Amino acid sequence: MTDAATSLHDFHAIVPAGGAGTRLWPLSRQARPKFLLDLTGSGRTLLQSTWDRLEPLVGAERIHVVTGVAHAGAVHEQLPDLTRLLVEPSPRESMPAIGLAAAVIAHRDPDAIIGSFAADHVIQDDAAFADAVRQAVAAARRGLVATIGIAPTEPSTAFGYIEAGEPLGIDGGPDVRTIVRFVEKPDAETAAGYVADPAFSWNAGMFVVRAQVLLDHLARLQPGLHAGLMRIAAGWDTSDRDDVMAGVWPSLTRIAIDHAVAEPVSLEGGMAVVPGRFGWNDIGDFAALTDIGATSTPGTVWVDADGLVVAADGTQVAVVGLRGVVVARTADALLVTTREYAQRVKEVPAALAAAGRADLQ
Amino acid sequence: MTDAATSLHDFHAIVPAGGAGTRLWPLSRQARPKFLLDLTGSGRTLLQSTWDRLEPLVGAERIHVVTGVAHAGAVHEQLPDLTRLLVEPSPRESMPAIGLAAAVIAHRDPDAIIGSFAADHVIQDDAAFADAVRQAVAAARRGLVATIGIAPTEPSTAFGYIEAGEPLGIDGGPDVRTIVRFVEKPDAETAAGYVADPAFSWNAGMFVVRAQVLLDHLARLQPGLHAGLMRIAAGWDTSDRDDVMAGVWPSLTRIAIDHAVAEPVSLEGGMAVVPGRFGWNDIGDFAALTDIGATSTPGTVWVDADGLVVAADGTQVAVVGLRGVVVARTADALLVTTREYAQRVKEVPAALAAAGRADLQ
Repeated sequence: MTDAATSLHDFHAIVPAGGAGTRLWPLSRQARPKFLLDLTGSGRTLLQSTWDRLEPLVGAERIHVVTGVAHAGAVHEQLPDLTRLLVEPSPRESMPAIGLAAAVIAHRDPDAIIGSFAADHVIQDDAAFADAVRQAVAAARRGLVATIGIAPTEPSTAFGYIEAGEPLGIDGGPDVRTIVRFVEKPDAETAAGYVADPAFSWNAGMFVVRAQVLLDHLARLQPGLHAGLMRIAAGWDTSDRDDVMAGVWPSLTRIAIDHAVAEPVSLEGGMAVVPGRFGWNDIGDFAALTDIGATSTPGTVWVDADGLVVAADGTQVAVVGLRGVVVARTADALLVTTREYAQRVKEVPAALAAAGRADLQ
Repeated sequence: MTDAATSLHDFHAIVPAGGAGTRLWPLSRQARPKFLLDLTGSGRTLLQSTWDRLEPLVGAERIHVVTGVAHAGAVHEQLPDLTRLLVEPSPRESMPAIGLAAAVIAHRDPDAIIGSFAADHVIQDDAAFADAVRQAVAAARRGLVATIGIAPTEPSTAFGYIEAGEPLGIDGGPDVRTIVRFVEKPDAETAAGYVADPAFSWNAGMFVVRAQVLLDHLARLQPGLHAGLMRIAAGWDTSDRDDVMAGVWPSLTRIAIDHAVAEPVSLEGGMAVVPGRFGWNDIGDFAALTDIGATSTPGTVWVDADGLVVAADGTQVAVVGLRGVVVARTADALLVTTREYAQRVKEVPAALAAAGRADLQ
C-alpha cells in the first residue's frame, strides 16, 4: 500500500512566483524580484532551483508556475521547459493564485493532488524534501489538507508557527500528525518556547491537497472566490480565456491561503502536518543570506571589518572598521546596513516609493 | 613703510599639485587625485579654488603650478588661464618640486619672493589668508623663511606642530614670531597640551621666502640638489629644457622641504611663523570632509542612521541602522567606513596595489 499511497503519478506542483522581497533591496526589486535572482551563487536562480527540485518528482508537464504579468517573460526565459504558466493580470495574494492553478488542474484531472511550493525558498536536502512531499501526498489521499512544516532552527519571530497534535497513523506517512492550531508570528519569548517544543514547526506555506478537496473547502468557506475560479477554469482551455480572466480576476477576493483555508480547516480537524527537516530557508533578509552560506564578492577588501558584501555590478568594494556589516550594491543603487537591522531594510523601498522613486523600489 | 613691506608686486605663488589623497579613496585616486576634485560641492575643484584664492593676490602670470606628468593635462583643463606649469617627469617629494619653481623664478627675477601653497587645501576666509600672506612677505623681505601656521582647532595627531617664540617686531608683520622648533606628529596627550598653548600651530606646509634666500639655504644644506636645480633653471628658458630635465631630474634627492630647509634653518633662528586663523582644512580624510560641512548626496535614504554618503555616480543610496557611517561610491568602486576609521582608509588602496589592482588605487 505504501507505494500506492505515496505515488506521485497524479501529483501536480504549483509554484506561486510572487513577492517583491523588499528586505533584500536593492538586489530584489519589484521589477526583478527575489525568485528571479541567483542569491545563493549556485548559478541558478531561486525559481530555477525550485524547478530543479520539483521536476524529478513530478515532471516538467505537471509544474504550474503562477506569476504576475510583469514577470511572465522572465519566467519563460528562466524556465525554457515550462509549459504550464498561469499569468495573473494583477496581484491578489496566495489563495486566488493557488486556487487558479487548482481549478485549472481539477478541470483537466478531477483526481489530481496538488502541492504549492514558493518559487523563492532554498532547500538543502532534496531527498528529505521529496520524502516529506510523499508523506504529505499520502495524507492528501486521505482527504486531508497537508502542510509541510519546518523544524525551527532558531526562535524566529519572522514566521508563523504550526502546533502538531497526535500522529495520524497514515500509511506512507509515518510522521504525519494532526494540527492543533496555527499561530501568528510570535514575540521573541513565545518563539523561544516554541523552539524548545518539538510539536512546533514553521509555517512555510507548503500545502499538499487533492485539488477537489481544496475547491470544496473554498466553495464552503469563500463561495464568491470559488465561483470566480470555477468560471475562469471553465474558460481556461478555450478561446475565451483572456476575456474571462479580464472579467473575473479583478473581482476575486484578496486573501492568503492560510486565512482562507488552512486556519479554518485546521479547527475542523481537516489538516495535517509533516515535519520537514531538509535545510529550509526563505532568504527573507540579508541575515538569512548569510545563514545559507552566501559569500562576499571576491576581491572585497576588509580592514578591521567583516560581514557580507554583494556587489552585483562587479565593482570593487572596501569596508573599513565595521563588524557584521551588510553591503548590497547594484548598478543603480546601494544599501549599507547590519545583520541586526536586516529586517528593517523593507523600509527603504517604502521610503523610495513615498519619495516618488517607485522606479527604484 | 608698511605698504612697501607687504607689497606683493614681486611675489610669486608656487602650487605643488601632488599627493594621491589615499584616505579619500575611492573618490581620490592616483589617476584623479584630490586636488582635481570638487570635494566641497562648490562647483570648483580644490585646485581651482586655490587658483581663485591666489589670483587676486599675485595675478595669473605669477602662479606656478608644479605637477606630475600624469596630471599636466587635467591641470591645464581646469586652469585655462595658467601659463606657468612646471611638469615633474617623476615624483620626488616637495623640496625638488618647490625648488624647481624657485630656481626657475629666481633665474628670471633674482629679487622674487615666493610662497608655496598646496593645491588641495580648503580655506574659508580669503581676506584673513591674504593678511597672513602679506605678513609672511614682510618677514621674507627681512631674509627670513616664513611659514604660515594654522591655529589648531582640535588636538589632531595628523599634523606636525610649530612652536612659536618671541614677536619679531617686523614692519607690516605684527603677528610674526620666531620659531622655537618644529614638532613631528604628536601622540594624543601631547597634542591636547599643544592645543591649549597659543604658541603652537599646525604645520600646513605654507612657506614664504625670497627665492634667492631659499636657494642659498639649499646650496649650503643640500648642495647636490641645489646644483641640479641650478642646471635645470639655466636650461629652462632654452631649447634644452626637456633634455636637461630628463638628464638631471631623476638624480635629485627625494626630500621634503620641512626636512631639507625648515627644520635646520629654524635651529639657526632663520625662520618665522605667522599664525593663520582663516578656517583651514586639508581634507585629509572623510572625517575632515564632514568637518567642512560636506553634505550627503541628496535623496539618500536614512533609516535609524546618520553619517556622510557621497555617491559620485549619482545612484540611490540607503543606510539602515548605522551611526556615523561614511559611504563613498564611484562608478567602479565603493568604500564603507566610519568617521572613527577615516584615517585607516589609506590601507585600502595599499591593499589593492598588493592584490595587483593598481588600476583601482
